Amino acid sequence: MSDNVKSNNAQFPQARLLSNRATWASGQPIDELMAMALAKPNIISLAAGFVDNETLPVEMTRNAVTDMLAESPAPLQYGTNHGDPELREMLLSNSVAQDNAAAQTQQACQTQLEQVLITPGSNQLLYMVADTLLDPGDIVICAAPSYFVFMGAVKNVGGRTLGIAIDQQGMLPDAIEEALQRLEDQGELQRVKAIYTIPYYDNPTGTSLSSERRQQILEIARKWSKYHKIYIISDEAYRLLRYQGDDIPSMHHWDPQLEHSIITSTFSKSYSPGIRVGWGYIPNELVEPLINHKSNLDFGSPFFTQRIMANVLKRGDWDRHVTRLREIYTTKQQAMLQALDKYLGSIENCHWYQPKGGLCMWLTLPDNIDTGPASTLLPTTIDAGLLYVPGQYCFPVEGQKVNRSTIRLTFGVQSASSIDQGIAILAESIAQIQS
Amino acid sequence: MSDNVKSNNAQFPQARLLSNRATWASGQPIDELMAMALAKPNIISLAAGFVDNETLPVEMTRNAVTDMLAESPAPLQYGTNHGDPELREMLLSNSVAQDNAAAQTQQACQTQLEQVLITPGSNQLLYMVADTLLDPGDIVICAAPSYFVFMGAVKNVGGRTLGIAIDQQGMLPDAIEEALQRLEDQGELQRVKAIYTIPYYDNPTGTSLSSERRQQILEIARKWSKYHKIYIISDEAYRLLRYQGDDIPSMHHWDPQLEHSIITSTFSKSYSPGIRVGWGYIPNELVEPLINHKSNLDFGSPFFTQRIMANVLKRGDWDRHVTRLREIYTTKQQAMLQALDKYLGSIENCHWYQPKGGLCMWLTLPDNIDTGPASTLLPTTIDAGLLYVPGQYCFPVEGQKVNRSTIRLTFGVQSASSIDQGIAILAESIAQIQS
Repeated sequence: MSDNVKSNNAQFPQARLLSNRATWASGQPIDELMAMALAKPNIISLAAGFVDNETLPVEMTRNAVTDMLAESPAPLQYGTNHGDPELREMLLSNSVAQDNAAAQTQQACQTQLEQVLITPGSNQLLYMVADTLLDPGDIVICAAPSYFVFMGAVKNVGGRTLGIAIDQQGMLPDAIEEALQRLEDQGELQRVKAIYTIPYYDNPTGTSLSSERRQQILEIARKWSKYHKIYIISDEAYRLLRYQGDDIPSMHHWDPQLEHSIITSTFSKSYSPGIRVGWGYIPNELVEPLINHKSNLDFGSPFFTQRIMANVLKRGDWDRHVTRLREIYTTKQQAMLQALDKYLGSIENCHWYQPKGGLCMWLTLPDNIDTGPASTLLPTTIDAGLLYVPGQYCFPVEGQKVNRSTIRLTFGVQSASSIDQGIAILAESIAQIQS
Repeated sequence: MSDNVKSNNAQFPQARLLSNRATWASGQPIDELMAMALAKPNIISLAAGFVDNETLPVEMTRNAVTDMLAESPAPLQYGTNHGDPELREMLLSNSVAQDNAAAQTQQACQTQLEQVLITPGSNQLLYMVADTLLDPGDIVICAAPSYFVFMGAVKNVGGRTLGIAIDQQGMLPDAIEEALQRLEDQGELQRVKAIYTIPYYDNPTGTSLSSERRQQILEIARKWSKYHKIYIISDEAYRLLRYQGDDIPSMHHWDPQLEHSIITSTFSKSYSPGIRVGWGYIPNELVEPLINHKSNLDFGSPFFTQRIMANVLKRGDWDRHVTRLREIYTTKQQAMLQALDKYLGSIENCHWYQPKGGLCMWLTLPDNIDTGPASTLLPTTIDAGLLYVPGQYCFPVEGQKVNRSTIRLTFGVQSASSIDQGIAILAESIAQIQS
């Protein structure tokens, strides 16, 4: 809460100015870091989840805009709350084909077009899902660590996040079951509304749920839906940024009618975050509540950018762009892995996962090193020219204990040589505070 | 609530599936009408708040996109929660200049750039303001009738709308005072968080608040801020669509530091609803809560469309477009006024306001004619080829009684001859059900 708000309340002691909900909302911790970075323009930021500026599809976007405006002025008119039907249809058939290829089957699409919803970025859909499912005090089970923007949305609506231990394959199904059993014993199982996961190249850890774990987690959601459905919110923002290994079918494949699964995705990572078009595949019974909410929240997403993406897809440019992104990011990811080996490989109790895609890596330092904003490491690295995200920002409020010796690194923005230089700075800063 | 939700709840009788808030949300009544209209493609719709397709700025938008993409790929990258600083600065200095011209003064701008916030359409900002100010049961005072999308947002967050009588100059200040006195007597004044007004060419009535009334309403908000601030939410979406008379200063002019006034506006009516860029001028103490909410709600508005509008403004194209819109809509508004005189002028107890701008007109029919969805008039006119918005959709839940003999007409989309034809159908349908 700002000082301004406090002083205004002081003027009016008999009642509060803001809603309860507004007092639950807090900004994203990363906003503060961004401000620090802006104050030092030459800093090497391995913090932001931005995409590589060099890869932004200027030419493809210009072509799509030219095509669509030559055809009709309609993209400049209002759209609908659901979003552009043509884009929704292309997205759905695309992703069913992708799942069939990954599973080597020919399962027919069992999801209706009505179950596809477009939002300006998938963040809005995640927020709307939280708002539609959670009353204050309700629980979402998340990996510990997990994506802080989603956890902020849960907090904003008064919900609780409960963290589950992970390994290199993501959330541990046994740990989810144990947590549910404990909540049942405490009479709190009715509070659990959803399990949130980023099954492909997780933000922040880079880990992916194996095929087997996906099915296990789906089974757990079914089994523990004793008082009401427990949904799985499957955030698939990074799926297309795959650099090694085979594609894995989405939760959608094992739950083709979307009885338990809410799938969200976005063009922000695989095309452009500035265009900001996201989408989701939604269980039938949530379509009407979400569309009602959407009609009050903003009366429909920008139609112009939806039509740009429809034209990008029709021109085949999305696939071409993703192919290019994979090449570029593979190089950057390799640079980061090599730099970590080179500069941090000899530090005892320092380890990281080897992600096969995405934009994030998760680093665990020795227990005695705190990486947070009140530590000595963060200001030391900032002074030396590197910005990272303290891992503690990524932990749910309840459940699995916060590990304060962790760091989220992203390799999307910097060049291979800056990545190398950044990790060198990190290693030097660690050596400096340990000496 | 859909049948699907009911049946799912029936499966899980011990607890509910959705949040309380999701059960408060309902879709916009106009969605149903749009579906009716789509089923009859040749219907003359005087219902939708769409803008004229012929006026959509295809060429200007293409030029802006070409310019901006030639300069930098940045519009394809993430923006910030606040929105593009260059666009915010242009908007603020523009509107201060406009107020100074209207008031014939040279008041310096007292609003900080930080107080300007961009959202995808002003609807999102209206929703966020409702969510930030209102706890369930809190009250927003509105004109009766008022804008149904905003009233839907208030309902979505559990708030109450209380309607105030109007005349041809909008809300009656005395009626606001009486309502506040009554609420104070009932011990409910603490529930009142805001007064919502569309001071320029109101949706749905077309009326405008006079200079004097604006100042009176501001004075009322100040005077009755006994327990906490009572804000004025001034929705200025239609300001630039002025066809007759002089411009009137905004509430911002009499409250230059925005102590009580939240001003919202949008390019949807004055440029393009598909681009969907809106903005607001926000009291200092609400900046942080709103930005926090925004960072959870969607993590920032699409940057691409904000940069399009910045380029449109820099090219001077917004002014040029508004000049053209004024000419086109003046003709349409005249056509509607003439048709109303011609076809409905002789019906006793049938009257309408003469708006000087905007896109809406408000028609009151004789008391014995119900215009609603369960009436005989609406299906009669739809069969005959005309769609209108039943006025009853536009009334707040509490306060001033609903007038079921009213109609909202819009003249943005149809040609002058279709407007004439539409009003002729309305007159015939009235004659038919009265005989």
